[in-house]
Amino acid sequence: MNRSDRSLAAAGRPRVVIVGGGFGGLNAAKGLRGAAVDVALFDRNNYHLFQPLLYQVASAVLSPAEIAEPIRKILSSQRNCRVYLNGVEAVDLDRRAVRHEGGEAGYDYLVLATGATHSYFGNDHWAEHAPGLKTIDDALEIRRRVLMSFEEAEQEADPDVRRAKLTFVVVGAGPTGVELAGALQEIAARTVPRDFRNIDTTTAHVILLEGADRVLPGMDPASSARACRDLGRLGVDVRTGARVTDVTADGVRIDGRSLAAGSVLWAAGVAASPLALSLGVELDARGRVPVGPDLALSGHPEVFVLGDLAQVRDDRFPDGLPGVAQPAIQGGRYVARVIAAETRGRDDGADRPAFRYVDKGSMATIGRNRAVAEIGRHRFGGWFAWLMWGLVHILFLIGYRAKVAVMWNWLWNYLFFAKGARLITGSPPLRITRTLREDEVASLGPRH
Amino acid sequence: MNRSDRSLAAAGRPRVVIVGGGFGGLNAAKGLRGAAVDVALFDRNNYHLFQPLLYQVASAVLSPAEIAEPIRKILSSQRNCRVYLNGVEAVDLDRRAVRHEGGEAGYDYLVLATGATHSYFGNDHWAEHAPGLKTIDDALEIRRRVLMSFEEAEQEADPDVRRAKLTFVVVGAGPTGVELAGALQEIAARTVPRDFRNIDTTTAHVILLEGADRVLPGMDPASSARACRDLGRLGVDVRTGARVTDVTADGVRIDGRSLAAGSVLWAAGVAASPLALSLGVELDARGRVPVGPDLALSGHPEVFVLGDLAQVRDDRFPDGLPGVAQPAIQGGRYVARVIAAETRGRDDGADRPAFRYVDKGSMATIGRNRAVAEIGRHRFGGWFAWLMWGLVHILFLIGYRAKVAVMWNWLWNYLFFAKGARLITGSPPLRITRTLREDEVASLGPRH
Repeated sequence: MNRSDRSLAAAGRPRVVIVGGGFGGLNAAKGLRGAAVDVALFDRNNYHLFQPLLYQVASAVLSPAEIAEPIRKILSSQRNCRVYLNGVEAVDLDRRAVRHEGGEAGYDYLVLATGATHSYFGNDHWAEHAPGLKTIDDALEIRRRVLMSFEEAEQEADPDVRRAKLTFVVVGAGPTGVELAGALQEIAARTVPRDFRNIDTTTAHVILLEGADRVLPGMDPASSARACRDLGRLGVDVRTGARVTDVTADGVRIDGRSLAAGSVLWAAGVAASPLALSLGVELDARGRVPVGPDLALSGHPEVFVLGDLAQVRDDRFPDGLPGVAQPAIQGGRYVARVIAAETRGRDDGADRPAFRYVDKGSMATIGRNRAVAEIGRHRFGGWFAWLMWGLVHILFLIGYRAKVAVMWNWLWNYLFFAKGARLITGSPPLRITRTLREDEVASLGPRH
Repeated sequence: MNRSDRSLAAAGRPRVVIVGGGFGGLNAAKGLRGAAVDVALFDRNNYHLFQPLLYQVASAVLSPAEIAEPIRKILSSQRNCRVYLNGVEAVDLDRRAVRHEGGEAGYDYLVLATGATHSYFGNDHWAEHAPGLKTIDDALEIRRRVLMSFEEAEQEADPDVRRAKLTFVVVGAGPTGVELAGALQEIAARTVPRDFRNIDTTTAHVILLEGADRVLPGMDPASSARACRDLGRLGVDVRTGARVTDVTADGVRIDGRSLAAGSVLWAAGVAASPLALSLGVELDARGRVPVGPDLALSGHPEVFVLGDLAQVRDDRFPDGLPGVAQPAIQGGRYVARVIAAETRGRDDGADRPAFRYVDKGSMATIGRNRAVAEIGRHRFGGWFAWLMWGLVHILFLIGYRAKVAVMWNWLWNYLFFAKGARLITGSPPLRITRTLREDEVASLGPRH
């Protein structure tokens, strides 16, 4: 008999194990606040992250604490919920238990909401040269690489190498890629030029690569066209229909041709979290778990799968629900309602209402004062869409304190172009191992 | 002939090399704004750090960006100054050049302001178990360890191990140690208790160790007594006359007796930066460089040494000037005035006025609303001193934006005890490898 199997339970109440403290898992936990269950939420990190603004940490506009909040703190008043800082490695459907870094936990209901991770299309060795953007540590690593590229260019004498250092490639033109490319271009062209003496950072080259034939392929073609035009006006070099065939320390290969770049950032290829593999069910091409209309696993009504990890059938979305916050939030709330109802009435799940995703629209920001937005059949662009984007994102930020801090930062940056948090932290420190000789300084042209 | 020797110069103007972008180096650079010199400022980090508030980053009250600013940004409008993100390894006095990570730089004037680092009294292997607090990465590492101690305690069944995890030892009761201990006690007793289910964080044990016979040995005994009383009321276990004889992964040995502790933080033993060794002059016991009344090296009027790196003779301070910001700030400004005057008049330095340190007082905060302060012959304590401390620190923060952000954070925390930035980031992630069994949970007492 396995003693640890029931370790999370108290007094025989149904045990709900939630894996992942993102939008889906957190909303499932909060939705169970009044339910007569014991909730155990597992996450590898101690914070819930407001991922839509993560690119602003990467581009040094916001600090991590402004878009993240400790999961414990969010759930501190919910007495039926325990938080475990452990990654979950596998699910044993037959024994109704999850195996995690700290041992094993049995469940009566399981909610899997571990989201998505980067996918390098089978080229995992690219990860080293092209970091993705999913966690705070990712964002700080990207920030460090971008800022170090300017530092290295400042001390580089060879004009070709200098040009490469000032070339930033963003792979993937979904919302994250578009927002990251716009932010990088703003940094180079508006924020840092006066900080350097040997280089003209306004000559930095930001390239946005997309394999599809337009940017923001998940949005309406009109929005894509508008976004592409706004990106171009900003100075971003947008290249659609461009397939990355290799990534190295020196740059990328696009359809076989080399492009030297000091920084390559990965915003393409999302794959569902590998935990799905341990379920032993057939996954879709993107590693997602097919679920029924009640978000439960076929044959396992006690196991729910949410958000980016789930493949939900919906005629409106032939490729699956979009990989944004809303499907996860709505799924989490839905699952909590189902569990709460069943643990109240002790029925068997036969009468579960179907989950129906309410599409609240989608948006992406471009640089510091433009955006594209789609809400229902309405499309918006330019400054007005940016204002909408800003309001929506501030409204949904966790915590009043974060809202004020982020609003203050944005207002300040908007007025003064003085993006604040340009700190290079973390290890390993990149060391600059060579500075210019006198004749090299002289050759740098008018700015030195 | 060495070409790189003059690589930083333009058009024959005197070259001033400044090593270190702390209070001393930065003020020297800014003081040379109008001078007909070429300034090159070298620092390992890209930011100037407001070190007096670093303990608040370690204790998760402030974010790094709120107390640090890129050196480039601070000096962006000063066209006669270049910033180099390189550590300097050695000084060649005869050839008038510094060797740094990127090569070599010749100078006509050299300003050494690399400050102090931790000293483990010859036990450098303690560093691994007892991190000090000098850089932002140090602060984030301390934050991570402290927060992980609570997480590990939450999942620990053995009561002895749990007690050890909730034991925090701060070694050294200078201002940093006093402030860190007070902040840790506040976190455990006021900020996080509601976040945990299995442990009662108010039982956490914060121990402040000091080798001398009183806390804050640099201040008046009356201030020490007041600080000791306030620390005690807060709940900090203050132990003076306590000599640390060993530090291990499990805790510390004090005068030979073992004390199990999950976190040991080092706020004792400061030693001047090792760059001093390369000068080939005799250093004092703390590794500081003896300088004349003009802060210059004996026999080398072109080499100045500032702040924590310098041993300045001053009858008022038999042990040397205090290791705080003011001596460095004043020294930096003084040196800039001397260099500016000499490069204007081209005199030989014989008539330099002596540097005289103006003592503006000293202060240390204790917990979230008490402090001790000494200004001239006046001594203050309690809430009023805390208000003074807060105003002084906000006034001296670099940048209006940081002032507002920090003020907002403090006000918020003061009103709501809701210290915000409790994020665990950075690698290597500590992994919790075991959680409680059912019977262990049951044994944890009333809080579970």
